[in-house]
Amino acid sequence: MIERIKTIAEKNIDNMYLNDFFLTWEKTDDELAAVFEVAQILRGMRDNNISPKVFDSGLAVSLFRDNSTRTRFSFSSACNLLGLTVQDLDEGKSQIAHGETVRETANMVSFLGDVIGIRDDMYLGAGNAYMKEVAKSVQQGYEEKVLPQRPTLVNLQCDIDHPTQTMSDALHLINTFGGLDKLRGKKIAMTWAYSPSYGKPLSVPQGIIGLMTRFGMDVSFAYPEGYNVMDEVVDVAKKNAEQSGGKFEIAGSMEEAFEGADIVYPKSWAPYAVMEQRTGLLRAGDDKGLKDLEKQCLENNKKFVSWECTRDLMNTTRNKNALYMHCLPADITGVSCKQGEVAADVFDQYRVPQYIQAGYKPYVIAAMIFLSKFKHPGDKLMEVVNRGTKRIF
Amino acid sequence: MIERIKTIAEKNIDNMYLNDFFLTWEKTDDELAAVFEVAQILRGMRDNNISPKVFDSGLAVSLFRDNSTRTRFSFSSACNLLGLTVQDLDEGKSQIAHGETVRETANMVSFLGDVIGIRDDMYLGAGNAYMKEVAKSVQQGYEEKVLPQRPTLVNLQCDIDHPTQTMSDALHLINTFGGLDKLRGKKIAMTWAYSPSYGKPLSVPQGIIGLMTRFGMDVSFAYPEGYNVMDEVVDVAKKNAEQSGGKFEIAGSMEEAFEGADIVYPKSWAPYAVMEQRTGLLRAGDDKGLKDLEKQCLENNKKFVSWECTRDLMNTTRNKNALYMHCLPADITGVSCKQGEVAADVFDQYRVPQYIQAGYKPYVIAAMIFLSKFKHPGDKLMEVVNRGTKRIF
Amino acid sequence: MIERIKTIAEKNIDNMYLNDFFLTWEKTDDELAAVFEVAQILRGMRDNNISPKVFDSGLAVSLFRDNSTRTRFSFSSACNLLGLTVQDLDEGKSQIAHGETVRETANMVSFLGDVIGIRDDMYLGAGNAYMKEVAKSVQQGYEEKVLPQRPTLVNLQCDIDHPTQTMSDALHLINTFGGLDKLRGKKIAMTWAYSPSYGKPLSVPQGIIGLMTRFGMDVSFAYPEGYNVMDEVVDVAKKNAEQSGGKFEIAGSMEEAFEGADIVYPKSWAPYAVMEQRTGLLRAGDDKGLKDLEKQCLENNKKFVSWECTRDLMNTTRNKNALYMHCLPADITGVSCKQGEVAADVFDQYRVPQYIQAGYKPYVIAAMIFLSKFKHPGDKLMEVVNRGTKRIF
Repeated sequence: MIERIKTIAEKNIDNMYLNDFFLTWEKTDDELAAVFEVAQILRGMRDNNISPKVFDSGLAVSLFRDNSTRTRFSFSSACNLLGLTVQDLDEGKSQIAHGETVRETANMVSFLGDVIGIRDDMYLGAGNAYMKEVAKSVQQGYEEKVLPQRPTLVNLQCDIDHPTQTMSDALHLINTFGGLDKLRGKKIAMTWAYSPSYGKPLSVPQGIIGLMTRFGMDVSFAYPEGYNVMDEVVDVAKKNAEQSGGKFEIAGSMEEAFEGADIVYPKSWAPYAVMEQRTGLLRAGDDKGLKDLEKQCLENNKKFVSWECTRDLMNTTRNKNALYMHCLPADITGVSCKQGEVAADVFDQYRVPQYIQAGYKPYVIAAMIFLSKFKHPGDKLMEVVNRGTKRIF
Repeated sequence: MIERIKTIAEKNIDNMYLNDFFLTWEKTDDELAAVFEVAQILRGMRDNNISPKVFDSGLAVSLFRDNSTRTRFSFSSACNLLGLTVQDLDEGKSQIAHGETVRETANMVSFLGDVIGIRDDMYLGAGNAYMKEVAKSVQQGYEEKVLPQRPTLVNLQCDIDHPTQTMSDALHLINTFGGLDKLRGKKIAMTWAYSPSYGKPLSVPQGIIGLMTRFGMDVSFAYPEGYNVMDEVVDVAKKNAEQSGGKFEIAGSMEEAFEGADIVYPKSWAPYAVMEQRTGLLRAGDDKGLKDLEKQCLENNKKFVSWECTRDLMNTTRNKNALYMHCLPADITGVSCKQGEVAADVFDQYRVPQYIQAGYKPYVIAAMIFLSKFKHPGDKLMEVVNRGTKRIF
Repeated sequence: MIERIKTIAEKNIDNMYLNDFFLTWEKTDDELAAVFEVAQILRGMRDNNISPKVFDSGLAVSLFRDNSTRTRFSFSSACNLLGLTVQDLDEGKSQIAHGETVRETANMVSFLGDVIGIRDDMYLGAGNAYMKEVAKSVQQGYEEKVLPQRPTLVNLQCDIDHPTQTMSDALHLINTFGGLDKLRGKKIAMTWAYSPSYGKPLSVPQGIIGLMTRFGMDVSFAYPEGYNVMDEVVDVAKKNAEQSGGKFEIAGSMEEAFEGADIVYPKSWAPYAVMEQRTGLLRAGDDKGLKDLEKQCLENNKKFVSWECTRDLMNTTRNKNALYMHCLPADITGVSCKQGEVAADVFDQYRVPQYIQAGYKPYVIAAMIFLSKFKHPGDKLMEVVNRGTKRIF
């Protein structure tokens, strides 16, 4: 652990101090690497009964505009580990409806707030924009001396990216393959998969192609006709692959993407065009329109029931043994639905690694917070180790 | 307090370490005695401004599938006292609906979870089974190295038992009568009482007959025809009485049960057969069926309005002065309803003891958690005393 | 800060120990001054990274019977700063509906409760009365040895006063004008203003005239015919003004009140008579009646759209430069509504001071709690400073 802590000082991460975490592609390689390292260090501390609590008090504001179990508990766990108390902003129980500006709300909840975590993935073009506005508002509040500290914004999933998920996914790969450098040249298939539900966000596939192309990986992206994602993110993936010496290709089928893959990530999502339409209908409060759209989409999805991660498909991957990944919960054929994203036997084989994958999220979030709160995070981690406070007395 | 702490070391409680608390009759006499002792010690510490905080961080997951005030606040208080932060799993705000397995949810919320508290008392045959499945899931997760610690499950009321309630009730008796050994031979009347509501769980009467028969008490159980409870628990009570040298009898009337009693616990519940029917209707989402069942039950209840704890009945108890108990809230005649479980003057006479009875619950829960988290709980308690951290600075 | 702390010892504040905070006019001048001083001290500590945590554990119970963002986060922040954990009493998820007495609920949630914060402003004649009953109940519970400590009640807004708001407002004035003594002779215009909503509580205007008359200020109170507030509070304001050597007058118009004012506080509220009618309808659950009343009130409000805080009106204040105040959120013309309480340019000019005004509330609440929990609060603050625990490690 001490060796790991020493590597933090070598990284160029000054820009993380008092800064936010929105999209992985807005961060440098050193910054991403620092998140991975600090996450591992914090995990190591807790596993060794060393408490990394660095706040004696302080609030972490959470705002979930969509359901959440995994991310909610990960955020709570991360904040609790560092000593922050989560106060949820429940828009139903607040006075916000009533025409209040984002700037005002953002400041009003942040007087003693060190962190703001937001999930806002329902409206295309809105979630990330909203988070940026909140961050700008608290930055302004800090400069105007309204706020005694600059709360850090952590993107807990927006319409563009889901960085706490994809960074956890990457950390899982790092630990599975033995290091960040070991990912170079590995083939990952990020593919669409059939699900009997509709309206699933694009943030995971977008986040995966935007992040995994950073590490020199060979990223193969496949989806049925019409299920494309945001063009901007595809451009990011292309550019990343070029810069990192990896590959990014859009494959014509699940089969093509899986062929020889080291890692597969088959997951359902809604077509970008549908998400745009849905955004309009949600905004208009058009329930009839939403119902119709849902029906039409589910019908369309059905054309692609063959996009399922089966044993046969897995047998086409490297050594018939690619690492299967999912952000969970998965639609498992015969378990959570009649016909879904993945065959039950494939899911079961990889159940434990998937749970381990999910278990990185609290530490990734804690690392993002930690890195934004201390100018010299390596020194601070060393102080924490030397302090030696036990987590359990 | 030091004397009390020393007695902990003498008890055979190794099996409590990293274990759960489901039903009192699954625990040995030593284990129950340890809960009572540790509860008293923790209470003594707090009353003397000694903080028993033993967690510097850590989550306690709560899941309430039924309304709760007393138990919710008791659980929060217990966790807070020990240093854990409660994160509620609100199934309405999570993605659980969506076909996720119990095993998956249980692991996903437990990465940094030390405790899981569950209330699930609505479905006969389901609540306790669900808790066992959660416990099995996190045990598996721990063994598979998905979870860095084994969260302890605390039953906050199931379809079978309500151990945090009945253990608090027993602690109240211990303190009222001067010791656990003083309960031997005392007569307790656990009886049904009339209430203008329906569908009240069976867990309290079942829990009381299953627990009080452990201490050599003379347990008299009475209810109107048809209002019987689970046969399995009646069998447990019979076996317990035999082993402890006490008595267990099913009396034919409230009058018979109250006659010469030292303690009375008159409380409404729904007939087992009705709870079974209700479980089916709830599962089927049959609102009309539920309404009809409710109407029919309320009608049936009315035949037994005379099952009320009145002054006249109290006058038939030992020295006209039995200790009246209730798990609260009670249906008080002329106060919370027109005609209910207890006359207002009887309730008022025992109001303060009842509130004191309720006040043991936070400490009983804290003791259950404490005993599952430390291999040598006596030594740990001594360390806490010696540390001497003040609760209020 | 040390100088400030020393002044605490000079104040006669013995009566605050183990006491509640309901209405500012129930407190002595010394007691109000102590709240201001302690709030500033706690703020100073936090700004200097000194943690004022004085509770190692303990619950703060919150009960919000009306929506809240600002006050909810302020209460959470205050409790967190001092080391208390908020447990919300959500009446929808509890068993309270069911006829339980206030005394019982109050005791049941307070076994490990140090503070109870309540917002109850919807029913005229009820909110404050409810709080008093809760306070009486826990006092009785403490005396009966049901509760090991006496929880402090903090009024987070009732039908009569909103003391955490008005004390924050006053602290803002103290810091803006350079001291409590500097407020003497300053003219403050507390006026009604038009809003396209109805049913806004009377607690802010009542609280402001009841508090600002304490400091020798010249309080000018204006509202359209029929929009009067509680007579009792007007009497309090008159008496206060007399005793403090200030003035209290009811002006005939916004213009008259603003003329030469140093401070203006234009804000909408519902007429007292309407609130009384509404209370009856809410109690009766008369939805049709409530709708009709709302319609009729909105119609009536419209007669007074000219009651808007415009630039022209501001130009009639002292040096055209009065301090504009609002408890937020304000109804801003062209921003949050078509026509509202204040012109957008006026609001914008004072946006930052208003946010700063709102930022005092966490510290005011923390000060109220602190002063009720320590017999010698000055000594305790000195101990906290000397301890020197950092808020951020």
